[in-house]
Amino acid sequence: MGNKPDRDAGLKEGEHLDDLQNGYWIIQAEKGFRYGIDAVLLSGYANVKKGDRVLDLGTGTGIIPILLAAKTEGRTFTGLEIQKKSADMAQRSVIRNHLEDRVKIVQGDIREAVTIFGAASFDVIVSNPPYMISRHGLVNPDESTAIARHEILCTFRELAQQASGLLCAGGRFCLVHRPFRLAEIMDVLREVRLEPKRMQLVYPFADKEPNLVLLEAYKNGRPRLHVDKPLIVYEKPGVYSRDICRIYGDGRQA
Amino acid sequence: MGNKPDRDAGLKEGEHLDDLQNGYWIIQAEKGFRYGIDAVLLSGYANVKKGDRVLDLGTGTGIIPILLAAKTEGRTFTGLEIQKKSADMAQRSVIRNHLEDRVKIVQGDIREAVTIFGAASFDVIVSNPPYMISRHGLVNPDESTAIARHEILCTFRELAQQASGLLCAGGRFCLVHRPFRLAEIMDVLREVRLEPKRMQLVYPFADKEPNLVLLEAYKNGRPRLHVDKPLIVYEKPGVYSRDICRIYGDGRQA
Repeated sequence: MGNKPDRDAGLKEGEHLDDLQNGYWIIQAEKGFRYGIDAVLLSGYANVKKGDRVLDLGTGTGIIPILLAAKTEGRTFTGLEIQKKSADMAQRSVIRNHLEDRVKIVQGDIREAVTIFGAASFDVIVSNPPYMISRHGLVNPDESTAIARHEILCTFRELAQQASGLLCAGGRFCLVHRPFRLAEIMDVLREVRLEPKRMQLVYPFADKEPNLVLLEAYKNGRPRLHVDKPLIVYEKPGVYSRDICRIYGDGRQA
Repeated sequence: MGNKPDRDAGLKEGEHLDDLQNGYWIIQAEKGFRYGIDAVLLSGYANVKKGDRVLDLGTGTGIIPILLAAKTEGRTFTGLEIQKKSADMAQRSVIRNHLEDRVKIVQGDIREAVTIFGAASFDVIVSNPPYMISRHGLVNPDESTAIARHEILCTFRELAQQASGLLCAGGRFCLVHRPFRLAEIMDVLREVRLEPKRMQLVYPFADKEPNLVLLEAYKNGRPRLHVDKPLIVYEKPGVYSRDICRIYGDGRQA
């Protein structure tokens, strides 16, 4: 690990190998959906402990399991992805990073996740779900991007129901979403017995409205939310804050 | 108005007349519950328009109706308070400020507010309710302070139910609370058909956890929350931020 793999070997047409700057690599489409800061922030926020069995619902190209495998002592990291093309890229990234022992990619539907994996089979569930309500607003003509951004194949309620069923007692669900859906998200989480316990708002600049929210909910937790200090992305235009540099730098293998 | 009233005239023993720095005054107990920054921030956050009928649920010494009467063009401001001593101080503050035409203080129980005032009789409801769950944690031995801080006489759900019943179509409920109860608050508000539409977290310092949350919910509103930029109280220890100076200064009559 840490060695740069042969740049083109195994890459299909239209794919690119991106350096995660932590000794790992990821295969992504050159055009179409590519991972963003949301996935990195979620990996930084998820509280994965030694021995945890972790599942990423809607893993895309597998960015979150790979980042979590790099920086935590979790036992296994499973990524569930419905889109064949993305799941295939994720699987090849796992192999390229020699993470086959700890990271497993499964192609399948989030709405059937409890059936696929069995109830109460994970300690931590993470998800960077589509933010937009189905077909609201502009929908990207690229189908894979549309599915990643809009609730076309799965609503937030369906996702939360599956997460709740998949978590063992005391398990945690960690997600990133848009603040404009916060009231609905809190409501749905509580409805499926996932109690919001930790929240952080992500503000692009200190004097701007937040554009992301990070949340951790506990299965059957007691109601009491801890709201973290604000996470500011940019100190000034083009310059990341120290918090963001720390999150991007975590798990880097020098 | 704006003239300093005779300092002691009409004050009862143990009471003090405080200058609101905007041409108005308030009578408060020298010891016991006194208004704080929460009430000032709530008055700044509430979106009171010309002609609005406004009700403050649990008005204490009447600080919020007096501040709102000073800075907005609302038509009437009613303060409901269960504690006789506080309601009495509030009533005398109204008279001292010559606000009898616009501000009315009513002694009564929040849980009976719909019966007292009638359904759908207000455009805006504001409330700075007790933050703590009944008898959780340290309870102040002073009964008036305990009632203002703990849900001894009224739970948040009871308050929200009354607020919903009291609001006319399109009416707004504006409140200040502690972030640790946010998930429960959102959930209860939606349950009583008050949709959270605007939220601001109040951080004492830019790098600290928030200690207050301001929320505005619309009666039968469509789900979509706008989260405002962070409200930072202190620029550095002892020095208020410009936002706070602006809020305290609004309504000042030069």
